Amino acid sequence: MKPLNFEILKSFFSVLFICAASGVYAQKTYPEPEEMQPGMSEFWLPQPTVVTPGDIRTNSAPSDAIVLFDGKDLSAWENAETKGAAGWIVNRDGTFTVDKKHGNIQTKQSFENFQLHIEWCVPVHITGEGQARGNGGVFLQGKYEVQILDSYVNETYSNGQAGSIYKQSRPLVNAMRKPGEWNVFDIIYTAPVFKEDGTYRIPPHVTVLHNGIVVQNNTTITGTTEYIGFPRIERHGAGPVVLQSHGDPSDPVSFRNIWIREL
Amino acid sequence: MKPLNFEILKSFFSVLFICAASGVYAQKTYPEPEEMQPGMSEFWLPQPTVVTPGDIRTNSAPSDAIVLFDGKDLSAWENAETKGAAGWIVNRDGTFTVDKKHGNIQTKQSFENFQLHIEWCVPVHITGEGQARGNGGVFLQGKYEVQILDSYVNETYSNGQAGSIYKQSRPLVNAMRKPGEWNVFDIIYTAPVFKEDGTYRIPPHVTVLHNGIVVQNNTTITGTTEYIGFPRIERHGAGPVVLQSHGDPSDPVSFRNIWIREL
Amino acid sequence: MKPLNFEILKSFFSVLFICAASGVYAQKTYPEPEEMQPGMSEFWLPQPTVVTPGDIRTNSAPSDAIVLFDGKDLSAWENAETKGAAGWIVNRDGTFTVDKKHGNIQTKQSFENFQLHIEWCVPVHITGEGQARGNGGVFLQGKYEVQILDSYVNETYSNGQAGSIYKQSRPLVNAMRKPGEWNVFDIIYTAPVFKEDGTYRIPPHVTVLHNGIVVQNNTTITGTTEYIGFPRIERHGAGPVVLQSHGDPSDPVSFRNIWIREL
Amino acid sequence: MKPLNFEILKSFFSVLFICAASGVYAQKTYPEPEEMQPGMSEFWLPQPTVVTPGDIRTNSAPSDAIVLFDGKDLSAWENAETKGAAGWIVNRDGTFTVDKKHGNIQTKQSFENFQLHIEWCVPVHITGEGQARGNGGVFLQGKYEVQILDSYVNETYSNGQAGSIYKQSRPLVNAMRKPGEWNVFDIIYTAPVFKEDGTYRIPPHVTVLHNGIVVQNNTTITGTTEYIGFPRIERHGAGPVVLQSHGDPSDPVSFRNIWIREL
Repeated sequence: MKPLNFEILKSFFSVLFICAASGVYAQKTYPEPEEMQPGMSEFWLPQPTVVTPGDIRTNSAPSDAIVLFDGKDLSAWENAETKGAAGWIVNRDGTFTVDKKHGNIQTKQSFENFQLHIEWCVPVHITGEGQARGNGGVFLQGKYEVQILDSYVNETYSNGQAGSIYKQSRPLVNAMRKPGEWNVFDIIYTAPVFKEDGTYRIPPHVTVLHNGIVVQNNTTITGTTEYIGFPRIERHGAGPVVLQSHGDPSDPVSFRNIWIREL
Repeated sequence: MKPLNFEILKSFFSVLFICAASGVYAQKTYPEPEEMQPGMSEFWLPQPTVVTPGDIRTNSAPSDAIVLFDGKDLSAWENAETKGAAGWIVNRDGTFTVDKKHGNIQTKQSFENFQLHIEWCVPVHITGEGQARGNGGVFLQGKYEVQILDSYVNETYSNGQAGSIYKQSRPLVNAMRKPGEWNVFDIIYTAPVFKEDGTYRIPPHVTVLHNGIVVQNNTTITGTTEYIGFPRIERHGAGPVVLQSHGDPSDPVSFRNIWIREL
Repeated sequence: MKPLNFEILKSFFSVLFICAASGVYAQKTYPEPEEMQPGMSEFWLPQPTVVTPGDIRTNSAPSDAIVLFDGKDLSAWENAETKGAAGWIVNRDGTFTVDKKHGNIQTKQSFENFQLHIEWCVPVHITGEGQARGNGGVFLQGKYEVQILDSYVNETYSNGQAGSIYKQSRPLVNAMRKPGEWNVFDIIYTAPVFKEDGTYRIPPHVTVLHNGIVVQNNTTITGTTEYIGFPRIERHGAGPVVLQSHGDPSDPVSFRNIWIREL
Repeated sequence: MKPLNFEILKSFFSVLFICAASGVYAQKTYPEPEEMQPGMSEFWLPQPTVVTPGDIRTNSAPSDAIVLFDGKDLSAWENAETKGAAGWIVNRDGTFTVDKKHGNIQTKQSFENFQLHIEWCVPVHITGEGQARGNGGVFLQGKYEVQILDSYVNETYSNGQAGSIYKQSRPLVNAMRKPGEWNVFDIIYTAPVFKEDGTYRIPPHVTVLHNGIVVQNNTTITGTTEYIGFPRIERHGAGPVVLQSHGDPSDPVSFRNIWIREL
């Protein structure tokens, strides 16, 4: 219950205000909310966890990230089919390259909601065109593909370019660097929530920055990535990050500096 | 109308499938969608605009960005109150610093939805504590504040730390760099849509990366930033980016490398 | 600035609390937000507009609704193509029926966001099956179809049943009444917001109650209703409610009691 | 891979089109997606479950609803504090009335996402004013209150009127019936999803129809209903529907026809 005195006081001032400021007698007046103090909207708990950011020039991993590749080995990864060794090629310069003899690779660990940083590159002298030129992909929870492709002066369908949600959502702009230069994806992913019947209560969402430029802005993902036909909706839980081995000689994509933070 | 032959064909195969694969006679069978081709989900238009990204180490402006500060002058800014010269101090090292003799400054241009990159720093030998230590702010559309503060080993309320939506939403983590080091905000902002009665049909949303780390993840902004009391909902259109002059000797915040892209 | 005395007072009580209640000396303590009063979260303005509801048994129009059909004439409607007279048949019992000689009809008025109440019925002795049985539709803003069909013991594809967003989203359940009984749609529709490039910034959303049962729950509409192929995204403003004339002898859909409220 | 012949064919027609229709030689032409068939976007499974709707005039329970009160007894309810008998008064006319000697009552069953139908009434000769006139409430998951109040020609703060999310969101309009007449709430509620740290990943949402009129339109609930201060965010799972016993002699709210459907 509001204390009576306060109400009386407020009505008193309201009447005063009406008389003094407007001179309108018939106008309806309503109480104003009671005056607050600054401290009433200051909440101390929970205190945000302290995280040390990575290097500003190299985008190295923050202190709370799970490092998925630090230049040395593929111990965080496995073959997506056999669950054996990843088998892709770790290079001397702290990068690794897809090996078409081995198929897709995936993280050993599964994830729900996350921020993923991944850098990738196609060779200076890459050949091929359209989809046959640096084709790869990052599958979120193993289901939803953020497309990797050399989209630099290379025509293809818009929803198949680098930074697209493959065959669903074209990138807002083409932010591709030249062959031989490193591209960066920063991916903020929100996992779907399912209804009892296996359909989405809340579909997955994703924001993608390609080389620091927003190319997907909280995009709703409508279902699994399908090469043919409509996206499908199928129930799933936590899932790995999968890197696609496209298998073409024209697709020698390399990677470096991969880290992920659970959100 | 679906051609009859197709239906017959489909039913035929459905029946075949039931008999061969499951042996269940009574089970209801439904048509499968007709088979599609890969090209049916490949859309070429509109082609994404080509944008040249900035330098990977310096986060310099992409080719389609509006540069708000390039190290030389404050010609993109004005005093927020008088609309006269901004009056803050441009330093020789390509940065500028708040000047408490002048008030808040704002961009001459107004914006709706955008991606904003802004870097800021407090001096190595900063003094003060709590809110009186490097206090400033970036007001989106002049209404909604992303808090600037030296939150490095500096206790204050969680919804007032660097990267908070001030007095609304604490940062997910404290990603602050040490005094003397540069902090980066990458802000992805979606403007509100209003109903006829001036309330939000869709409230504003914001994603903030602080030093590359997600601290606001598509946060719903509930109203204007208020030092005292509840956020307020008031109709507005496009608005400037406003930088706050907090006026304390303890708040000598500097800035560099500011650019914005309309989304 | 928070008054100093308050801070001191708060710290004092915090220390007291620690000592008395937990006995832990080293544990960090933080200020509690200042105590509030009930009236601080009581807001009187704006006062909601008073609306007189319709009859509880007949779902008649509320006092602020635009009545689109009250049993007498089709003066609120026009032929969707010629913009001439609607031409459908007004019956003596206060209903009207599609006339296949005339095409689709639409409201003369255009709408943005709204609540639409519409009742429809197929004859007791309806014939045909699948999509050829009471087929019609309500197009929201002339673009997005809530499907009308006699789905009572009538098999068809799920995303083409009554209450579906046609070829996009199946109804959550089949809430169909028998032929000869009246069906009710209550549709809550939120119009899309477009980006400069003509794509959705925020796609349209719709909630549909079919005979009082939720069959679409804030469903995201992905684009225009297309009989063939993927939904398309095309910029539009306010648009009419369109009723579809499917043109088959098997589709003699009748309507009554139609009203709309702008939201 | 797309079959080569198709590509050739498509290019051929593209060239034809350019020459014939525009006469522009240099203009870029892109492939059109391959032509689809209607059946490709027709999905039969899962078939929506058949639900028999309730009576159109009485809003009786659909066949898949859990009936929470059918006019006979309060066996679906318990005292919210003691978990003993509900103790409110079941009347001879198939209604029940709050009993201030007993406190709040709640459903024995807990719910996540749901559609709730509930009818309520205040006496013809109700006395009192403001919040002391037919005050009650429906707490969703025991946490979030849809306000019950006699708001008919009764002034109070807007975010405390019937159909408000109490102290959070005022109703869009005042759709109140006169004392002695029955009011209907149809509530479509989406439960929150929590992050590991106990804050909302996705906050609760609610749509409320008051006497068939939308008064909350997919409103975001910002936290628990608090009489004093800001809403709080606290982790919870499934929860009961709670009916509030406000305890005043001026608040003799009666109820009838309550049913719920899980969504």
